[in-house]
Amino acid sequence: MKLATLKDGTRDGKLVVVSRDLTQYTDASFLARTLQAALDDWRRISPHLATIAESLENNALPAARFHEHDAHSPLPRAYQWADGSAYVNHVELVRKARGVEMPASFWTDPLIYQGGSDSFVAPRDPIRLADEAFGIDMEAEIAVIVDDVPMGASLEEARAAIRLVMLVNDVTLRALTGPELAKGFGFFQSKPSSAFSPVAVTPDELGDAWDGGKVNLPLLADINGKPFGRADAGVDMTFDFPALMAHAARTRPLVSGTIIGSGTVSNKLDGGPGKPVSAGGAGYSCIAEQRMIETIVSGEPKTPFLRFGDTVRIEMKDRSGHSIFGAIEQKVEKYQR
Amino acid sequence: MKLATLKDGTRDGKLVVVSRDLTQYTDASFLARTLQAALDDWRRISPHLATIAESLENNALPAARFHEHDAHSPLPRAYQWADGSAYVNHVELVRKARGVEMPASFWTDPLIYQGGSDSFVAPRDPIRLADEAFGIDMEAEIAVIVDDVPMGASLEEARAAIRLVMLVNDVTLRALTGPELAKGFGFFQSKPSSAFSPVAVTPDELGDAWDGGKVNLPLLADINGKPFGRADAGVDMTFDFPALMAHAARTRPLVSGTIIGSGTVSNKLDGGPGKPVSAGGAGYSCIAEQRMIETIVSGEPKTPFLRFGDTVRIEMKDRSGHSIFGAIEQKVEKYQR
Repeated sequence: MKLATLKDGTRDGKLVVVSRDLTQYTDASFLARTLQAALDDWRRISPHLATIAESLENNALPAARFHEHDAHSPLPRAYQWADGSAYVNHVELVRKARGVEMPASFWTDPLIYQGGSDSFVAPRDPIRLADEAFGIDMEAEIAVIVDDVPMGASLEEARAAIRLVMLVNDVTLRALTGPELAKGFGFFQSKPSSAFSPVAVTPDELGDAWDGGKVNLPLLADINGKPFGRADAGVDMTFDFPALMAHAARTRPLVSGTIIGSGTVSNKLDGGPGKPVSAGGAGYSCIAEQRMIETIVSGEPKTPFLRFGDTVRIEMKDRSGHSIFGAIEQKVEKYQR
Repeated sequence: MKLATLKDGTRDGKLVVVSRDLTQYTDASFLARTLQAALDDWRRISPHLATIAESLENNALPAARFHEHDAHSPLPRAYQWADGSAYVNHVELVRKARGVEMPASFWTDPLIYQGGSDSFVAPRDPIRLADEAFGIDMEAEIAVIVDDVPMGASLEEARAAIRLVMLVNDVTLRALTGPELAKGFGFFQSKPSSAFSPVAVTPDELGDAWDGGKVNLPLLADINGKPFGRADAGVDMTFDFPALMAHAARTRPLVSGTIIGSGTVSNKLDGGPGKPVSAGGAGYSCIAEQRMIETIVSGEPKTPFLRFGDTVRIEMKDRSGHSIFGAIEQKVEKYQR
């Protein structure tokens, strides 16, 4: 089934079930007011949501037109947003761009950071920031929403706790990351509010593109209407979601509604760093990576970071070409109080 | 007024108002089911909570005996836990202990990390961890719960958004911090679930001990019933709460219910690192700091980190000797599934 949270003036929005083709929705808030409430009681509520989803497909329920721009992020605020860097290729390239070596252990020990989860942005709302000089970048990623995971969970326990899959734009301020990471406590100001896809789907909606741990489909990232990234989310994912979850749950439990991110999707090409889409490659899921390649090839980066007025679009289509999660589409705007 | 969250079998507990002397409570869940719900609508709900608190003081309401061990952390789970390192003295010492230099900018640019906020522990519940070899340490701190803070808030706007004050035990796994911070993305496994004091109080309850930005009273930290730390939370706090909040809100808003921590309270002595309580000093609010002093003085640390069976107690008393927030008192136990 496919779930969304409609903006209704409340902080956490209203839970709805969306049709497989993303054209219709029907209210589900009588079962659980919010997606978090559904997740908190998933075993009891999810069968009823599944029944509603089935009735919606069969036109057996009153339905209304689903507009992606009416949707909030599925969890407008969450109790946890823990974002991995599972495509180690990306980490290696971004570190190179900062002139920092990557330890070999990064290929065996998952890297994950604690993100801010209190103020997500809706998938069609602008990215509002005070200054272009922050070095505004997108990061196109996959994320899962998980159920309660006990401390010390095994990979199999983690896998069994994956409830929903969605897309993320993990906006990153590249001019702030270097100085902030040098302070030693991880990201804070360099990670403004993320946005998630209009719709979150249960893994079964992905069919055989879901292998139990990752999504085997290309992630489509466009900038100003032009293809920028077509990296396959199932390729070069060194740590799958269960591995990231087990890592996150080593010394504390994860509560229902925890969001685990994949990190920027990134594919190698013949063991090397890949090519831009315009040069026939799979491209990149963030600008920093393309700038790094440009630096390697021509001595300096050419692609600018995002500027006010630019638009980022992130989407994923099934093998028939239908949008699975709806699209994150965000314009960058100057923040003014 | 003083607020607490009683355990009632639900994930977020039940909101109650507690008497100033911490002996009585009365239900407030008819106004707002949970503390988060009260914070989400603070302007409307807090006057009613204040009226209840006044009636409770006047014995004009049905009340029951308040037991601190029935309380959960005031927010059993929160949308954000952002913990500063405002006592830069502590940062300098802990870095020395790890053999890492501290940049001079740390005295002017606040340091803050994004903590896990989804699974706090109740103030009288054990610290359960799988292995003593993690190097289990307490960190006794002050924290504030804040209302919505807009992106780019000024110090005065931040100050005006402080709603409640409480204590924290920010448990830290010292054997994991070094390797984890070396990975560059901040803490994750090295910060298991924190516990907060049984009661959160509005700043006015602190009287003149609250100066609008910090609490000018000693923070009492005991290990196994013996005084370990008596550092004054109002001394050597390089960045007060409004400064930490404005830093946290530079590139994104903070949602109501965000918890901002002070970091480990730490006092200098005559410009130097202070002395243990047993040697007539103000002691330390974490074991790592005392171990660092021991290393400086005698070449090696003597005080062990916490072992299974040890008990940590964190409390703060007003100038008449009455407990303000109730006590965090946690026994360290081996985690078993």
